[in-house]
Amino acid sequence: MQPQAIAWVDGRSDGRPAVLRLLDQTRLPHTQEYLDVTTVADLVDAVQRLAVRGAPALGGVGALGVVIAMDEAARSGWSPAQRDEAIAAVRTARPTAVNLAWGVDEVLPHLPQGRDAVLAAAVDVVRADGEANRELSRLGAKWLRARVGVDRPLRVLTHCNTGVLATTSWGTALGIVRQLAAERAIELVYVDETRPLLQGARLTAWELAQEQIPYVVQADGAAASTILRGLVDAVLIGADRIARSGDTANKIGSVGLALAAREAGIPFVVAAPWSTVDLATADGSQIHIEMRDGAEVCTFLGTQVCPPGAVGFNPAFDVTPARLIDAVVTERGVVCPNRGEDLSTLAEQAEKSAAG
Amino acid sequence: MQPQAIAWVDGRSDGRPAVLRLLDQTRLPHTQEYLDVTTVADLVDAVQRLAVRGAPALGGVGALGVVIAMDEAARSGWSPAQRDEAIAAVRTARPTAVNLAWGVDEVLPHLPQGRDAVLAAAVDVVRADGEANRELSRLGAKWLRARVGVDRPLRVLTHCNTGVLATTSWGTALGIVRQLAAERAIELVYVDETRPLLQGARLTAWELAQEQIPYVVQADGAAASTILRGLVDAVLIGADRIARSGDTANKIGSVGLALAAREAGIPFVVAAPWSTVDLATADGSQIHIEMRDGAEVCTFLGTQVCPPGAVGFNPAFDVTPARLIDAVVTERGVVCPNRGEDLSTLAEQAEKSAAG
Repeated sequence: MQPQAIAWVDGRSDGRPAVLRLLDQTRLPHTQEYLDVTTVADLVDAVQRLAVRGAPALGGVGALGVVIAMDEAARSGWSPAQRDEAIAAVRTARPTAVNLAWGVDEVLPHLPQGRDAVLAAAVDVVRADGEANRELSRLGAKWLRARVGVDRPLRVLTHCNTGVLATTSWGTALGIVRQLAAERAIELVYVDETRPLLQGARLTAWELAQEQIPYVVQADGAAASTILRGLVDAVLIGADRIARSGDTANKIGSVGLALAAREAGIPFVVAAPWSTVDLATADGSQIHIEMRDGAEVCTFLGTQVCPPGAVGFNPAFDVTPARLIDAVVTERGVVCPNRGEDLSTLAEQAEKSAAG
Repeated sequence: MQPQAIAWVDGRSDGRPAVLRLLDQTRLPHTQEYLDVTTVADLVDAVQRLAVRGAPALGGVGALGVVIAMDEAARSGWSPAQRDEAIAAVRTARPTAVNLAWGVDEVLPHLPQGRDAVLAAAVDVVRADGEANRELSRLGAKWLRARVGVDRPLRVLTHCNTGVLATTSWGTALGIVRQLAAERAIELVYVDETRPLLQGARLTAWELAQEQIPYVVQADGAAASTILRGLVDAVLIGADRIARSGDTANKIGSVGLALAAREAGIPFVVAAPWSTVDLATADGSQIHIEMRDGAEVCTFLGTQVCPPGAVGFNPAFDVTPARLIDAVVTERGVVCPNRGEDLSTLAEQAEKSAAG
């Protein structure tokens, strides 16, 4: 049983405030430590320093963050305007992942019905994300096995962390890996270490070790040659925001993998729950990319790497254009942006199925 | 005045052995410490743990290493066979950079004339490398300004370290940057940090800071998006071995930059002295790629990053195919492998000019 990235502990029966319990991912893999968050300020801080990260997990944080804000407002005697300001702070703590705002927006309509209604809606957001991840993992594994079309276990490459730690449970791109492993269809996972914060080396490696799925860790710069040398059957990544066109914002380094995958003729697959799709954003040019502190590049674990005075250039994400993406896998189905399919196809299918 | 990567200190007048003085590059940028090498075992160790690195610098180390072996043989009473074995150990200390073997081979014909003749030949190898670097830097800067064709300072991206520290003096790809800076034609240098050993963040940043050339350091994974976003006018790298076809082995991460440069339509330039060209190797498929200890990936500055038991996958180099290389710049001239020009053109030109 893998530990969860986020959990709700409703402790009000003994008078203590309810807490959003976050596994502090800055301390992994060496220390498994939890943060019990009861204030909006602490929540925003945890999000901004990536104690909790991963677009789908941030959806849950957004939804449960509204309850944190409501509880803090009640304890502190805030006005409705002050409470709404706190909710807005949760909603915008990081700019690129659409899921954070989406999670807030999913539960806000329940605000008039009071705290317990909002909590129930937030718990539902968390439960639904886990179900979506399992479904998209099944769909992705099936699509990939058909597309690669070989009768042997697959060698896949992944970037950053898209597993249990990045979601409410199960995972997205790493969820597909887990599904393939359950089908005895994984030979080896190449894990990009994912500088500057090493989510691959620290978090993905940790998850794969726990699941006993074979993996190796490589420098991000090694990925292109690993792909071009024919060592990899497919590249699987997650997403922080998918535009209607299929253009995808994801962890810095993703677009380079897409170029290498196209060159090698292997599929480049984006896996994310539908909550990551932002139909209101037409294409990647409209996605705001978070610039993080250059010190994340120039230092490591508090040790200065660069000479004094060096400036780090540290965009947290890049945008992979739709034409380089073979498949976007969501729980609603698979679309192929590089064949001109856009994400609204899946929205229409879902509407039809709801209407029918 | 930048410190030199390698220097010869012929201290025999006071009875102490001559030393090959190496700036210990594993300690930079924070500590400027020298290793005085007098034995082949210490020399091979320094080369293998990258206290001295960079293909052109290794040419000098190879040449002067023969003198170290001769002096040690004389002190220790080795047989000629033992001495030759020691020379062979210098020659093969690392497999990918052709220059190490080339440096040894340049001076070996002088062995029958004795130690001082070999030393004179080795000193000549070192001097000639510095001259070659200055000449190729002038040629490269001229070619690049004509090719980019804009009337403003250039924004360039580089990988690993190809400056004074990688050569006997001046530098190759970074030599072109220095030449451009001297012509007031550099706006900004994007420096890839170059995991796992951070030669960009530690060494290139240090050199650029000393030269007061504006730079920023970025994660290797950021390079593709920096290029695709139009922030860069050209990519400049060095080389560890250039095959006759133009296929180029260089620090892991290079081929990904070449893919991004082609996608963005900007020139991808390889800069190296002629000693890096290996006409005996027809193409990249024949280049042996050094696999280094996976622990270099799983640790960061000596601290374990990955979970216990993780395996690192750590090829030190990759091969960029000729079709992705706009220019190979050597002191003999510029060839354009992506237009079908191969390196033997320059060899023939040099022969003609020697004959004429």
